[in-house]
Amino acid sequence: MGTPASAGNRCYFDINPAYFRVMARIVQKFGGTSVGTIERIQAVAKRVKAEFDAGNEVAVVVSAMSGVTNQLVDYATKISPLHDAREYDVVVASGEQVTSGLVAMALQALGVPARSWLGWQIPFKTDAVHGKARIQDIGADELRRRMSAREVPVVAGFQGVAEEDNRITTLGRGGSDTSAVALAAALQADRCDIFTDVDGVYTCDPRIVAKARKLDKITHEEMLELASQGAKVLQTRSVAMAMSHGVRVQVLSSFVDAPGTLVVNEDEIVEKEVVSGIAYSRDEAKITLVGVQDRPGVAAAIFGPLSDASINVDMIVQNVSEDGKTTGLTFTVGKADLERTVSVLNERQKDLRFARLVPDSNVVKVSVIGVGMRSHAGVAQRMFQTLAGKGINIQVISTSEIKISVLIAEEYTELALRALHTAYGLDQDETRT
Amino acid sequence: MGTPASAGNRCYFDINPAYFRVMARIVQKFGGTSVGTIERIQAVAKRVKAEFDAGNEVAVVVSAMSGVTNQLVDYATKISPLHDAREYDVVVASGEQVTSGLVAMALQALGVPARSWLGWQIPFKTDAVHGKARIQDIGADELRRRMSAREVPVVAGFQGVAEEDNRITTLGRGGSDTSAVALAAALQADRCDIFTDVDGVYTCDPRIVAKARKLDKITHEEMLELASQGAKVLQTRSVAMAMSHGVRVQVLSSFVDAPGTLVVNEDEIVEKEVVSGIAYSRDEAKITLVGVQDRPGVAAAIFGPLSDASINVDMIVQNVSEDGKTTGLTFTVGKADLERTVSVLNERQKDLRFARLVPDSNVVKVSVIGVGMRSHAGVAQRMFQTLAGKGINIQVISTSEIKISVLIAEEYTELALRALHTAYGLDQDETRT
Repeated sequence: MGTPASAGNRCYFDINPAYFRVMARIVQKFGGTSVGTIERIQAVAKRVKAEFDAGNEVAVVVSAMSGVTNQLVDYATKISPLHDAREYDVVVASGEQVTSGLVAMALQALGVPARSWLGWQIPFKTDAVHGKARIQDIGADELRRRMSAREVPVVAGFQGVAEEDNRITTLGRGGSDTSAVALAAALQADRCDIFTDVDGVYTCDPRIVAKARKLDKITHEEMLELASQGAKVLQTRSVAMAMSHGVRVQVLSSFVDAPGTLVVNEDEIVEKEVVSGIAYSRDEAKITLVGVQDRPGVAAAIFGPLSDASINVDMIVQNVSEDGKTTGLTFTVGKADLERTVSVLNERQKDLRFARLVPDSNVVKVSVIGVGMRSHAGVAQRMFQTLAGKGINIQVISTSEIKISVLIAEEYTELALRALHTAYGLDQDETRT
Repeated sequence: MGTPASAGNRCYFDINPAYFRVMARIVQKFGGTSVGTIERIQAVAKRVKAEFDAGNEVAVVVSAMSGVTNQLVDYATKISPLHDAREYDVVVASGEQVTSGLVAMALQALGVPARSWLGWQIPFKTDAVHGKARIQDIGADELRRRMSAREVPVVAGFQGVAEEDNRITTLGRGGSDTSAVALAAALQADRCDIFTDVDGVYTCDPRIVAKARKLDKITHEEMLELASQGAKVLQTRSVAMAMSHGVRVQVLSSFVDAPGTLVVNEDEIVEKEVVSGIAYSRDEAKITLVGVQDRPGVAAAIFGPLSDASINVDMIVQNVSEDGKTTGLTFTVGKADLERTVSVLNERQKDLRFARLVPDSNVVKVSVIGVGMRSHAGVAQRMFQTLAGKGINIQVISTSEIKISVLIAEEYTELALRALHTAYGLDQDETRT
């Protein structure tokens, strides 16, 4: 209720109480382990109730109970490895459906008005690329209306409905993060909380670097690079969506009661770190082609067939030709694609005219990430010096505006991460106990 | 393709090939044990394919994999015994959703064009009485169109959608039988096959009466009485629906390859048996009120409060009053309602003015059923004589046009069933091995 300008006057302020909204509108997303048992679902409901009781408008997005999706995928694969993606979606989307109903019940049991919403009910419209659909439009008006009337929508994540065939679609593994960020964008939410089994984004993997610090804030861009370069906290696609829609995302644990890491626009961060975090990925394999004919179009001739086979090539280095006739070419692919890459190239050895192919899967990609790099020189140089100081050979280098990645032998992973973490001043004061 | 009336003439018969349809349109329903594992789902697909390959139009209705619904109900109950029926429906309907997708996949793997259909997609419109919704209308046109184009719809049983709130509804336990019969009616199917874990309807429970015979045919009315009087082969509601829509239902096993029992309209059965089957129900409890004031309105005064408490009263006998002042009243209720019945009546003992209440749950109701009774005298007499001959006392009797039920002490169940089975000439020639 607004306050009348003066007693006896007509109260204009009452027309739109939402105009005076001071509470926040929040989307809370809970992953599979957070809703893995009935007890945990009840704990989730308590957490939602706390935000709700604080006067906030809350929408919840849920994953399937942990283990459920794997079981359903197993069923589908057992029937046929080449199953119809549309039927796959019908089967696997049921997991989030169950959780949405259970969480709504658990909220009601605590006296919080709540109801479940399935993808087709909202609707969460997607294209018809079943199994990895893309969100096109979210019918958020009804949800917003109910939220302002103090009801909590509990949305089944990961799923949508294709207008084309009126069938259930899913967004691909980890799609619930994307559901949550997309819903936050559609609801113009003040924040999207992603509850998971870690309590935030760290400067490096704390299982390897004991001195890793939890970050209070990080930019969308940095988070996107961290996720793409191997950090498994948030799904890359959801970060990209948060970035393009300016959604403030908080990563936090559903098992501890503490603030997590805020992923925000760059302008929200006053004091920018030169380097915010160090990521690594063991999911890399290196291929070196020796004795490649050094002629125009050779790179296209090599990478064309790989692209046709849907193999993503990441880092590429072409060696300087010594004799002016042949050259060496080194590049990386995902470890899972190594075998296929080798067979695609060997089939074309005569056409491509390379002498020898040397595969190596004992490599790791280490990436140093920070928006501060843009204005700071010497960041790469420090990386090279630090690794050299530990006797670690750099095999391939690639850089972007806010990232430097190097490929090194896998056995040096821990040594490299710890040395770089110290070198960039990321170590926390005390060792975590 | 039709045959032209004469060569050279325009072929009018080709206009509507469906006009010459000789194949059948069949609905096949598979229960929870029939789809309990991936191997069984694949066996179901083979069975459907056989009908399909024979040129028939087939629609499939599926239950949840056995155990799944119980698990989901447990979840809901654990969160709150008083859960929201709308959320309950969201949760439990997921079981049939999974099976529909998996069976569609299994059919596709055998080369049969198939797709899953959920309640809201068809739509299977129901009222909004969540948890035990009633079917109002089925959008069968699109299914029929696809079936005539050689596609097999795999329909998730047990579920619908309420137009009122656009939310998932369920039809109550065993509702998949009802889904199948309703779909068969909407599709004007020639037959509705209900696959279950028994191979047909027997003259009596074969676990008790070894000489029980499997019936080839039985009328809807008889089946309805059998189901209501304790035979657990088909859900009562689905039989009532089959009767009112004239749907031919076949009960058969998904584990053996043999015809089952056809449930049909009476006019399809030429040679009517006097007695078709004998049912029994141990789910009975008897209550005797002694010393009831014999005055007008006493029955209403007693049964009114029970009706208010949603307690169904089945058989009722009022003893003839000897002194003209008091009388005895005996009636039966479901065993599960006995305790509540006793407490409801005891609370009102002063008002109702009865001297004593005697509960007895050691009773069984035995029913002899057959449409032939209408034209044959002496059926009841044979029942009474047979039981008397074995020294079995009849406590309560009730009859309908095609049924005689008696209440006897539970310990005589087996003896009574076997004696009656022989007395009515139902024994098969050889003892089943």
